Amino acid sequence: MIINDVLNEALQLYKPSQEEEKHLMDLANKIIHRAEKYSPNYKSILKITLEGSLAKKTWIRGREEVDIFVHFDSMIPREEMEEQIVELGFKILKDLDGKPRLMYADHPYVEGRINNVVVNIVACYYVTPPNWLSATDRTPYHTRYIIEKMKPEIGDHIRLMKAFMVGCGVYGAEIKVRGFSGYLTELLMLNYGDFIKTIEAISKWKPPIIIDIEKYYDSIDEVLKLFLNQPLIVIDPVDKHRNVASAVSEQKLSELILASRLFLESPSIKFFKPKPPIIRLSSIRRKVGKRKLIGVVFKLSRWKPPDVLWGELRKSEEAVKRTLERLGFRVYRSDSWTDEEKTCIILCEINNDKLPYTRLHQGPPVYHPNSLEFIKKWKDNPEREAGPWIEDSRLYVLRVESVVDVKKLLKKEIEEGRVALAKGLIEDIKKGKITTSIENLMRNRKLRSFIYEFVEASLPFI
Amino acid sequence: MIINDVLNEALQLYKPSQEEEKHLMDLANKIIHRAEKYSPNYKSILKITLEGSLAKKTWIRGREEVDIFVHFDSMIPREEMEEQIVELGFKILKDLDGKPRLMYADHPYVEGRINNVVVNIVACYYVTPPNWLSATDRTPYHTRYIIEKMKPEIGDHIRLMKAFMVGCGVYGAEIKVRGFSGYLTELLMLNYGDFIKTIEAISKWKPPIIIDIEKYYDSIDEVLKLFLNQPLIVIDPVDKHRNVASAVSEQKLSELILASRLFLESPSIKFFKPKPPIIRLSSIRRKVGKRKLIGVVFKLSRWKPPDVLWGELRKSEEAVKRTLERLGFRVYRSDSWTDEEKTCIILCEINNDKLPYTRLHQGPPVYHPNSLEFIKKWKDNPEREAGPWIEDSRLYVLRVESVVDVKKLLKKEIEEGRVALAKGLIEDIKKGKITTSIENLMRNRKLRSFIYEFVEASLPFI
Repeated sequence: MIINDVLNEALQLYKPSQEEEKHLMDLANKIIHRAEKYSPNYKSILKITLEGSLAKKTWIRGREEVDIFVHFDSMIPREEMEEQIVELGFKILKDLDGKPRLMYADHPYVEGRINNVVVNIVACYYVTPPNWLSATDRTPYHTRYIIEKMKPEIGDHIRLMKAFMVGCGVYGAEIKVRGFSGYLTELLMLNYGDFIKTIEAISKWKPPIIIDIEKYYDSIDEVLKLFLNQPLIVIDPVDKHRNVASAVSEQKLSELILASRLFLESPSIKFFKPKPPIIRLSSIRRKVGKRKLIGVVFKLSRWKPPDVLWGELRKSEEAVKRTLERLGFRVYRSDSWTDEEKTCIILCEINNDKLPYTRLHQGPPVYHPNSLEFIKKWKDNPEREAGPWIEDSRLYVLRVESVVDVKKLLKKEIEEGRVALAKGLIEDIKKGKITTSIENLMRNRKLRSFIYEFVEASLPFI
Repeated sequence: MIINDVLNEALQLYKPSQEEEKHLMDLANKIIHRAEKYSPNYKSILKITLEGSLAKKTWIRGREEVDIFVHFDSMIPREEMEEQIVELGFKILKDLDGKPRLMYADHPYVEGRINNVVVNIVACYYVTPPNWLSATDRTPYHTRYIIEKMKPEIGDHIRLMKAFMVGCGVYGAEIKVRGFSGYLTELLMLNYGDFIKTIEAISKWKPPIIIDIEKYYDSIDEVLKLFLNQPLIVIDPVDKHRNVASAVSEQKLSELILASRLFLESPSIKFFKPKPPIIRLSSIRRKVGKRKLIGVVFKLSRWKPPDVLWGELRKSEEAVKRTLERLGFRVYRSDSWTDEEKTCIILCEINNDKLPYTRLHQGPPVYHPNSLEFIKKWKDNPEREAGPWIEDSRLYVLRVESVVDVKKLLKKEIEEGRVALAKGLIEDIKKGKITTSIENLMRNRKLRSFIYEFVEASLPFI
């Protein structure tokens, strides 16, 4: 059957070999060994464990990560735990030549890279449910839950599902993606049974979707009331008050639904393979043609963890978009990109790069005290083109638009602080550049692929 | 006091002299005499009376009208009454060289013009309230009510009020204006007492406004429930179920409120004097400048009464405006004009005379059965510029706009019947011309003044 051929091919691509597994487990053991060597120096450290996809044997090739958890006594204050995990993490990763870097999710952890494998050294409190003290305390319970419930033959199906999500661009709970986490994917598989059943179920999803594996709740209404306005609700088997899918955006959820429908209609390996990036200048130029883009390009004055940076970027993108709409432009689409080191861009496609020569300006209703002032202000105003006239009960004038160029207009709004940019980026954006020239943008080679994807705006699986 | 100087000057302008009054009364008597001569031929005609402003002595110079009412027995069927009034009206007016013309309001009447004075010969049923059989039956009661209630000194105040409304462009209940009728103006004056008190009261109006001179109703709520969504409610003393102000548009009401506020702030004779029309081509050209207008100009294939024509014009204007908005243009303002004989124009000011090169096209939500079809339709479509992509739960594409010129777009919509034009004008409009060139419009000299007023868009009293 063709669908099984596709799945076998995908498994070839993504299922790690025994050698690869051994290599990763050796690395994990080496780190744990090292951690156990240092931990007696910290009297609050109770144990060191391997967590995440490696512990559950559900990782896929290309997404290898070693998650080492350091369990602290629940009596130690938060700040001390944070200090100690940073110190310990740096020591271990330096020993192993792992280029340690301080990261922040809900609390600090240390990330490194050894032989091109991402290593995370994370602190958690050693607690029993539901007495969570920090966001990472649940993770060991998640690992244990999946290992206990997972039938051996389901491992491949989880890997297929993760590979499918990677191929369709919806995998990852980080703010950059706002998609499906590994744990969430594993729960979906436990709930539906195998890859095809899961895809079939997803293809029929219509939000809101509720999945409550442990049947903690008796009624749908109860769940909906508790998790208001969340399109996908997957009750955490380890904590009935938590929605494992709370980070999933409506967009990524919809993309997965659509991908599932399309895959069932005509299964193909392309759903598992991201398209190669296109960076030929001529292709991009031809694609852009007469369309109107505006980009805000800026340099980061200091490094920050990707989740922080992407959060700030998305907020600023939304603010730029709203400002353009407020100024009178139609924003068809917007997106952001960053190399996560130095360069950022907020890019919008707009209907026009100039405003019309005139603008309708609404005044108060005639019976409002200010209406006489409005008339005085506009009667002999050189910016008046027509009016004041009355429509229904309101005064209107048609005024000259003194500045019509989108670049100048947006620049002024940013300079004068009328754009709700993320605080952490305001200064960098003010020093940045606003351009409507595709050539200016494409001088940065790394940006080209992003720009092509932006102007093509096609889903990876179509 | 300055306000009294202004009012005295206005009275000089608008109050008819005794000679003028004698001349009009002579004309009225001549017509009544003639009518009485013919009426014995019609056995259902019971009496002939003079009604309206001449009977009430409340007309103003420049607005002279002689309203002759022919009272029919209530037993005669409607059609026969209509036939007879047309026959009688034509006979009388022909005798007096009055160029008779058949008009339709709620039922037919005959209009003529003798020595430049408008003469109306109108049929009504001779009935007692509230047994109205036709729309004109109330008129004799209106005349009688005003004459009875009007103190002699109030005549001048009514004339001032009418003159003020003429000067401010809000006088007249006809569809062209949708403003204040003579009877409505008289009732306002009875209610408030004199000109200044009336202006003061109006300057404080905030809709909904209720005036119930005869105190037919006990509560405001009762009135509001009966006359839903009407901004100005003036209960007819002659018929408690009728709002005398039902024809007043919110716009004209607002214009009068504003004019009253401005007049009280600085009284001036200009409120009583309409501005002279400007028809210098260079003024209009300079005023239009870079602004974008689109006009639909057409010839009438047959004459129709002004109220019918204006009703059709307004409906068609609204339809053109909506169509332009639907096509993606912003319509700042619209207006219509006709010489009421031959030529009509619907004119709109728009933000732009071309659409952007691309257009956002919304598809179904991903979980909708049609979403796969939408993708198939657009995937390799030559009109696709970008997409399909997903925002929230919906599919979108960016498509090429194949026609961008506003003239061509509107022409096609009209030709293919997608504009909700008034039925009586469809064929004439289809044969008409669509233009964005101000020069084309100004070839018609009579149109120039309308076009200047349209682009100036200023209230006559500002």
